[in-house]
Formats: sequence, structure tokens, C-alpha cells
Amino acid sequence: MENTCQWLIKKMETAVFLIQCKDQRGIVARISEFVFRYNGNIIQSDQHTTDPENGQFFMRLEFCFDPDFVSHKHLEDEFGILAKTLNALWQIHYVRQRLRMGILVSKQDHCLLDILYQWKSNELSVDIPFVISNHESVRECVEHYGIPFFCYSMDGVSKTLQESNILSMINGTTDFLVLARYMQILSESFITSYNKPIINIHHSFLPSFKGANPYRQAYERGVKLIGATSHYVTADLDEGPIIEQVVDRVSHRDNVDTLIRKGKKLEQIALANALRAHTEFRILRYSNKTIVFS
Amino acid sequence: MENTCQWLIKKMETAVFLIQCKDQRGIVARISEFVFRYNGNIIQSDQHTTDPENGQFFMRLEFCFDPDFVSHKHLEDEFGILAKTLNALWQIHYVRQRLRMGILVSKQDHCLLDILYQWKSNELSVDIPFVISNHESVRECVEHYGIPFFCYSMDGVSKTLQESNILSMINGTTDFLVLARYMQILSESFITSYNKPIINIHHSFLPSFKGANPYRQAYERGVKLIGATSHYVTADLDEGPIIEQVVDRVSHRDNVDTLIRKGKKLEQIALANALRAHTEFRILRYSNKTIVFS
Amino acid sequence: MENTCQWLIKKMETAVFLIQCKDQRGIVARISEFVFRYNGNIIQSDQHTTDPENGQFFMRLEFCFDPDFVSHKHLEDEFGILAKTLNALWQIHYVRQRLRMGILVSKQDHCLLDILYQWKSNELSVDIPFVISNHESVRECVEHYGIPFFCYSMDGVSKTLQESNILSMINGTTDFLVLARYMQILSESFITSYNKPIINIHHSFLPSFKGANPYRQAYERGVKLIGATSHYVTADLDEGPIIEQVVDRVSHRDNVDTLIRKGKKLEQIALANALRAHTEFRILRYSNKTIVFS
Amino acid sequence: MENTCQWLIKKMETAVFLIQCKDQRGIVARISEFVFRYNGNIIQSDQHTTDPENGQFFMRLEFCFDPDFVSHKHLEDEFGILAKTLNALWQIHYVRQRLRMGILVSKQDHCLLDILYQWKSNELSVDIPFVISNHESVRECVEHYGIPFFCYSMDGVSKTLQESNILSMINGTTDFLVLARYMQILSESFITSYNKPIINIHHSFLPSFKGANPYRQAYERGVKLIGATSHYVTADLDEGPIIEQVVDRVSHRDNVDTLIRKGKKLEQIALANALRAHTEFRILRYSNKTIVFS
Repeated sequence: MENTCQWLIKKMETAVFLIQCKDQRGIVARISEFVFRYNGNIIQSDQHTTDPENGQFFMRLEFCFDPDFVSHKHLEDEFGILAKTLNALWQIHYVRQRLRMGILVSKQDHCLLDILYQWKSNELSVDIPFVISNHESVRECVEHYGIPFFCYSMDGVSKTLQESNILSMINGTTDFLVLARYMQILSESFITSYNKPIINIHHSFLPSFKGANPYRQAYERGVKLIGATSHYVTADLDEGPIIEQVVDRVSHRDNVDTLIRKGKKLEQIALANALRAHTEFRILRYSNKTIVFS
Repeated sequence: MENTCQWLIKKMETAVFLIQCKDQRGIVARISEFVFRYNGNIIQSDQHTTDPENGQFFMRLEFCFDPDFVSHKHLEDEFGILAKTLNALWQIHYVRQRLRMGILVSKQDHCLLDILYQWKSNELSVDIPFVISNHESVRECVEHYGIPFFCYSMDGVSKTLQESNILSMINGTTDFLVLARYMQILSESFITSYNKPIINIHHSFLPSFKGANPYRQAYERGVKLIGATSHYVTADLDEGPIIEQVVDRVSHRDNVDTLIRKGKKLEQIALANALRAHTEFRILRYSNKTIVFS
Repeated sequence: MENTCQWLIKKMETAVFLIQCKDQRGIVARISEFVFRYNGNIIQSDQHTTDPENGQFFMRLEFCFDPDFVSHKHLEDEFGILAKTLNALWQIHYVRQRLRMGILVSKQDHCLLDILYQWKSNELSVDIPFVISNHESVRECVEHYGIPFFCYSMDGVSKTLQESNILSMINGTTDFLVLARYMQILSESFITSYNKPIINIHHSFLPSFKGANPYRQAYERGVKLIGATSHYVTADLDEGPIIEQVVDRVSHRDNVDTLIRKGKKLEQIALANALRAHTEFRILRYSNKTIVFS
Repeated sequence: MENTCQWLIKKMETAVFLIQCKDQRGIVARISEFVFRYNGNIIQSDQHTTDPENGQFFMRLEFCFDPDFVSHKHLEDEFGILAKTLNALWQIHYVRQRLRMGILVSKQDHCLLDILYQWKSNELSVDIPFVISNHESVRECVEHYGIPFFCYSMDGVSKTLQESNILSMINGTTDFLVLARYMQILSESFITSYNKPIINIHHSFLPSFKGANPYRQAYERGVKLIGATSHYVTADLDEGPIIEQVVDRVSHRDNVDTLIRKGKKLEQIALANALRAHTEFRILRYSNKTIVFS
């Protein structure tokens, strides 16, 4: 059931609607009737309604259709009309059009390598136009995968200048960014300019231990579990909508070094799960939270 | 959002459809249109389709409606007609009509007490017409909760006779049974005669350690995790569709006694989760497996 | 191997040393030689040394001995001499002398009931001289277990007065207190006066969501895991040494009510594990952290 | 506290005793006195005693010593004399002398890559003399790490011949083998001839789903958790002593492909934990089980 209509003739393709509006009677009927009208077949649909009173309605609908029967443009135009009557926010994603994911990374390479391995194994359906780092250290491994690598060092260079260099690279070439242990804080103006999703991995169980050296903070506090959190980046550091969190048990025998080692696995897992959800169009953002359809 | 329409006028009520048929285009549209036609509002809908080729379609649809606008009987008659055209198996459950849960238990009372506590706290929406045991030991605690208790000892009495006594009690008075650590194996004829769901808690991570003394078996094998499994009972012992499984870490320091102690918590959790899913009508059975909508 | 010497003649008994000092060569040799000299047999010994430089040494040593061969007093006097040469802090606990645990609770009874059940089942080796609450609601269930119950309402009564009433009850009659969801903040002077361990269960994954309504805070933040933390109480609210933490997965489908329901199980488990560790003398405190020997 | 005495003058070194004998009074005293006599300092000691009656005693003792004060040979000779009086089995390992780990692998490379990454990052203290596979596919990545690679194809070649070729490579050059998803069943005679530890990763939660295609088996059975198990290899397939097990949650939405993908992470984690425990000399085998000191 992997996002495809391969059991139908090859020209069929798969798309995903993400829809969000005020709850009202008949939404599901109208949307599913729309799909049916264009000969689509629903593969998976998920729905969530918040508080009964004044509720918000969220839907993910994955379906396949024949692009010879209805073009992308026609589908979008017609759905736009329906969405207007529902006063709904909506997106459509075509599964064949893989998202373009820009990667930013610093020296720590465990998340980067895990992402590249999954990409190579077709476990992560994205295109990776390039990897950007503020250090040269990961160049060889990135280029080994045949991916262009660019280094924008922050040493002795103004951050504003380098951010503007990075912006000019990523604008138009990427659909979202992943900070795979990128140890620079992005400026608010960078985030605003880019204006597309940025996914970060923070090496703590947020909201605990924001900011620098979370494993050191965790060690000092004497917690019995450590965690990792992947979240969308907002202008408030480590305060954006949480996508995924994982934890592991630690004990008094652990020191900062072993916390860091154990944490690497957690960071890989939390980030990989977040990237999978994002690239399968399973996430809706609402009120600084995420709805992650399974 | 707890299965209710309390934000509407009080006469509204909530129902759940569970539907299963061969996958085909337009199912969701027709079902959601049906709900809309009767002025219903969908609260939650979940759908699952198995293998793309020759797929099966499963749906859980929770909605509220006005019983003054459409009666139970009319709703069911009309939906029956629709279901026939889809060649679908279906059930409807009205949330106000709580399932009647018969409990069978032996001497071990930790699952029983957990169930009764949740029932008392309104965390488990069922009626409990009685508790049956083959021992007297839990009588006091059951009656303390104001629930009738019956003892059918298996000592020196033919199992066939006692099963027939139990059958005559549970037929017509219960919608399903839970074996909350009932240490008697139900005969195939009992299961066939009852012909309603029976949920068991087995104190291992099935399919490992079926049958007697699973903690002893786990100890002998030297596993590093122990588990508990709740499942529907079929004529094949410990082979029925699995509903929920949970595990906990153990070590060489554990002996059979500490495995039993740790396992009690696991059994409580696995059984409670299974009962919640069942009583919220979240489970469909298919091909000796379960689909458990979240 | 449950803390006993039952395989030896009945008069043998079991004791536990908890020892803490600056690391130095020969400590284990001298302590184990001490046990051997008095015909003791070591059942379990655990040791932990912090940072190599300037390290602290921690040890838990469980052994059995013949009290006819060496009296408690002699053992303690002699060990005191040894400990002085090591400049060590130390405690000895005799397993037969169960700790006396005072329980403070408010209206939420799930932790209380879990503790009482374990106590009744001999899974928790303590004496419970009484339960104190600021509400009458749990009286019946406590007295049902044959345990005296006292209510010190905080409504319209000065907190200072009630704390002084409680202090006069617990002084001399308890070895430690457990706050099993006691929704009053103990004053610093109360904590200082009592001067024995107080174990609290906080319904969040500390240090996240300190203070009031942690499930509401967790819901607002949109976390994907919730937790519970048991810790020793200090004058700094929710800042004391952490003993145990557990977590469970949640999703956008959860609201504050379901977080509370799921959290109850976590609170029971975290508190039960902490109480077991404390009553088996497995915990040493150091630098606002705990060493919990397994 | 990472297995070192780096806080002392550089010539100090660290060793680990693993000791196993019938339980008897005074063992710890005699062993720790032995270490003290040779000016050693105990860094960590762990002890486990099985059943009180007729118990077995197990100990891991990590200490540092001055090899100029006492030579390896002298230490071993003298400890051999002590061990004889205790009728104990024992090993000594010097932390500086890293174990030589031979790797066998087939086409699946996720465990191999994880091991090589940890080795490169100094998170796994071993020497890797070579990697052997029955396929050429991983050659490039192995050689990229500067490790010799040898391919012994099983296609059209007698297994006996290839096993004998492998044996002649690994004898004398390795201290243990890891089967990092090696899809050939080793013959009993191979295992007997090698006569050193062999660690395997099995892609199920043993003892469930032994043999071929465990994820397919798990899918068919409809389990709600999948697992991975690392264990020592014995002549009985998938029946050797278990070292580590990990699990992850799955649902009806998972098919065999997604189980395989999720399982890869579990296999990496279970195998990495087992290799860490083995190479830090934390494991004692007893009665087809393991004692894994933390």
C-alpha cells in the first residue's frame, strides 16, 4: 500500500490532499464525493477534529487518479472552488514529485549519514540537491554519495553574509530544509525569507534542556531518561511545533560522553521518523502543534 | 471529543459504524454521503485498505445524529440497503448503549482490580452484570464494588457441567467476555456456543511461551524482555487475533518471582488497552489479525 | 535471592550497608574483609565510582550473618571504626526491620491504591502506620485495608497549624514519607523539621512542566511523549534528586483528559519503582542526584 | 570513567577479571584483597549470585594497576593459584589489548555500516582484521574504511570447502566473530572448530519466529510489536544464550516491507549493545543464558 497505484495501469498516479478548516457537517462527504467524481480511488484517509465546540477539522486524503482523465490543473482548480466554499486551507502533493530536501549540517555526521543511507536505500523519498555545512569535514562522505557539497564557514565571516549566500542557494531549489545537527542558530530574517518548512533535531526531550549542551544539562540534573526531539523551526529557539520525540533509559553509570553516544541513536530515530512523516505529507501544523497522521 | 455530541443539544447521540468489504471506488463518498443525508456529523473516521491488489477495505466512522430526525431502526434499515450494494459486513454501535462485559477470573486478582477501578472511575464505559470465578477468593472485593459474584468451582465437578452453567448465565446478559487471568481452558464447544467476543490476557509476548507457566519458560530461556498479550479467544489456545502487546526489560537479576511481579503491570496495561479499544468499537477482525483504529 | 538467608538456618539475618566516601585504594578489600571476619556472606554488592579524578566511591553491600555470632551493636560499633578510617558516610539496614512509611494523599487515589495493593501482596516490604489526607474521600478504602486514616483539611485552617499537627504524628512513627499525589506544597520548615526522606510523584517528565497542571502544560506544548517522575523532596519545588522516570507515547488525538488517564499508569509505575528501590536500600543521594543500584 | 586509569601516571593500565564459581563465604574479600595486594585500584565491581541454595557466584571486577609493579604474567600466575582454591573459572582481559573482531555479512549492510561507523568513531573498542561476505556487494564500503575484504561465494561451491577457507582465515586472527546479518547457517563442525564466541543478530524477538523470514512470520501472526535479538551462536539454530533484545511498536498499517525497514533500526541497536557488552567484558555465560553486567 506504499503510496502507489501500481496495481492499476501505469499511468495512474497518487496524490495527497491536506485540508484544514472549521468543523461543519458534510465535509467528508463533499471531499470524498469530489474524489469519486474524478474517478479517484481513496487509498487512505485520516481525519481529526479538535474540541467539539468551535472545533477545527483536519484531513489527510491519499488517492489515486488517472491524469489522462483529469489533469493536475483541472483537479486543483476544481478543488480550489470546493475549498473556498468550506473556507479551507489546503495543499495537494503528487507522490511522483518528490520533495527537494536541502540539508544543513555541522561537524556531527551521524544524522547526516543516517539520512543519506535511507535516501540511498529508497526508504526516504526525496531529492537532495545539495548538502551545506559550515565545516569541510563531511565533504568526502557527501560527495561519495554523488551529492554536491558546499561549505559556508562561519569563522571570520559575517553570519548575515553567509545566511544570504545560503538563502540564494536554497531559494527555488528546495521544498524544505533539514538541520541535521546544524550548530548555528538561524536568524529570524533567514527563517522569514525562506518561508518554507525547516525541520530541526534537538538533542533533548523538549521542553527540557533547551539551548546549548543539553546532554551536559541532563547529566547535571540527574535525569533517568534522555531524549531527542524533532520539530519545525520557528523564530523562537527550540519552541517550534514538535513532530517526534524518543527517549532511552540512562543511569548513574552514564557520564556526559555516554549520554552523547546513546543520544546519537535517539537523534537519528527521531529525525528519520519526522522526515518520513513530512515527506509522506502526514503533518498538519496548528497552533504551534502538529497533527501527525499515522 | 470523547465519543459525544455534548456540544449539541442534549438529544443528539453518537454512533459508530464498523464496515468491511472488498475495496472499490467511491465507498467513502457513499458512506459519508449517507451520514450527511441523515444530518449526521462525522466526529472521527478511520480507514484502512490492505494490499492494493484484491484489497479489503475497513472503516470505522463515528458520527452524531439526531434520533428525532432519524430513528435507530430507520438508520439501520437504510444503511443495510447501502451495505448490500457494497457487499459489506457492518455493525452499528450506539455509544449510549454500553456493552455488557462478563468477567471470568481465577485467584490472581490484579487484572480484575484494575478493570473494576477503571470502571468505577468511568474510564471504561461498560456495564458489568457479574463476575464469575472458579474460586471464592475475590468475592469480597467484587461485592465491595456492588457487582454480583458467582463461583463455579472446577474441583470435583465436571468441566462440561460448569461450562454449561456459565453459558446459561452469560447468554443474553453479556455482549462479550473478558478472561481476566482465568486459569481454565475454555472448551471449543463453549466458545462456539457463546459465539460472541472473548478477550483473554496471556502473560507472555505471544507467540513465545504459549500455554502454562510462561514466566517460568521466559526465565528458562533467559530472555531480556518479558511481555503480555491480549487477544481474542479462538478454539486454538493462545492463537487468536492479537489486540495489544506490551513489554518490559528484565535482567539476570530477575527470578521467576520478580518476573511475575513485573508481569502483573504489563498484564494490566495490555488488557486495559484492549478493553478500551473493544468497548470504543475500534477493532475489526480479519484473517486471524486485528485492525485497531487509534 | 529476595534479601534473605532462608537457605541457612533460620536465625541468620540479612543486612545492607550503604557507604559513601572519597575513592581510595583497598576500600572494597577492607569492607569485604570486614564482612568475612564476622562470618558474613555477601549476597550482592554493587559499587560505583564517579569521575576518575577526585572521585567519590559509593557502595551497596547486602550480606547475611548470624546475630548470635555478632550482635547488631557490635557490628555497628566495629564498622563505625572502619568507616572512620575511610572517612565514610554509612548506614546499615536490617532487612527484617521493615521501614515505616507514612503516606500523604489528596483526592486522587490511583497511586495510593496501587501502593496498598502491593503492600497487601507483600510486593512492598514496609509497615504503613497510617495514611493522612487533606480530604475524607479515601478514608473508606484505607480503613478497608485495616490502616488508620487521619484527615487534616486545609480548608479554612492555617497551613502552619496543620503541618505542625502532621509533624507531631509522623515524628517518631515513620522512617520516610511518600506523597502519593498530595496536592499541598510542603513548607520548607516542615521539610527541615521532619529531616527524613520524603518521596514525591510528579506527573510530568521533569524538569519539563514543573508546578501546577503539568498535563495541561504538556497538552499546550504539544509533546509526543508524557512522563512521570518520582523524586526526593527538597525545599526547591520539583527540583529534588530524581529516582525514577517513565514515559508513554501520546498523539494529537489526546486531550487533557486522556493525558491524565494515561498518566495515572505512569505515576503508579514510577512511584512503585522508586518505593521498591528505597525500601530495598538501593539508593544513595549525591549532589542532587541519585545512585540507584539495580 | 571509561575503562581507563588516565588520571594516574600513563603507565598504569586497566584489566578486567571475569570469575565464576560455586558461592562460598569470603570470595569477594579474597579477590579484592588480591587486587589490593598488587596495588590495584578497583574501578568497578559487579557481582551476581544465583539461587541461594547451591548458588553460583559471578563477578566482574575492573581495576587498574601498575605493570611495572606487577607483570601480566605474575598477576595471572598468582590469580590462577587463588582461583584454584576457589575452584573458579576465570578470564583476565587487558583493556589496552583490543579484541580482534571478524565480521561475516551477506548483502544486507545496515548492521555492518553501523558497526563500522562506531568503530571509526571510537565508540566500539575493537580491531577489525577483515570482513568476509558471500557476496561482493559490500566490498567498496568495507575497503573505503581501509579494512580488508574477502568474498567466499556460496554459489556453486561446497559449503564445507568455503567454511574451511573461512576457518583458516579467522583462526589465529580473531578473538570472536560477529554475524552482522550473515544469511548462511554455520555448520556445527565450523562452530566447534572455531571454538571462540560468535555473536549473531536475529531479526525477531526470540524465541518467536526462529528460522527464515521472521518479519514475514510476524506479519502473518499479526503481532503488535516486532523485535530483534542478539545472541551467542550455538549448534542449535537461534537457540543460543540471548545477550540483548529490543522491540518497536507496529500496527495493521505495516506490511512486510515496513516491518523490515523498522526492524533494521532494532537490529542495529540490539547488535551494537551486544557488541559493546562483549568488548567491555561484561558478559558471563551460564546455563544457556547470559549475565550482562551493566
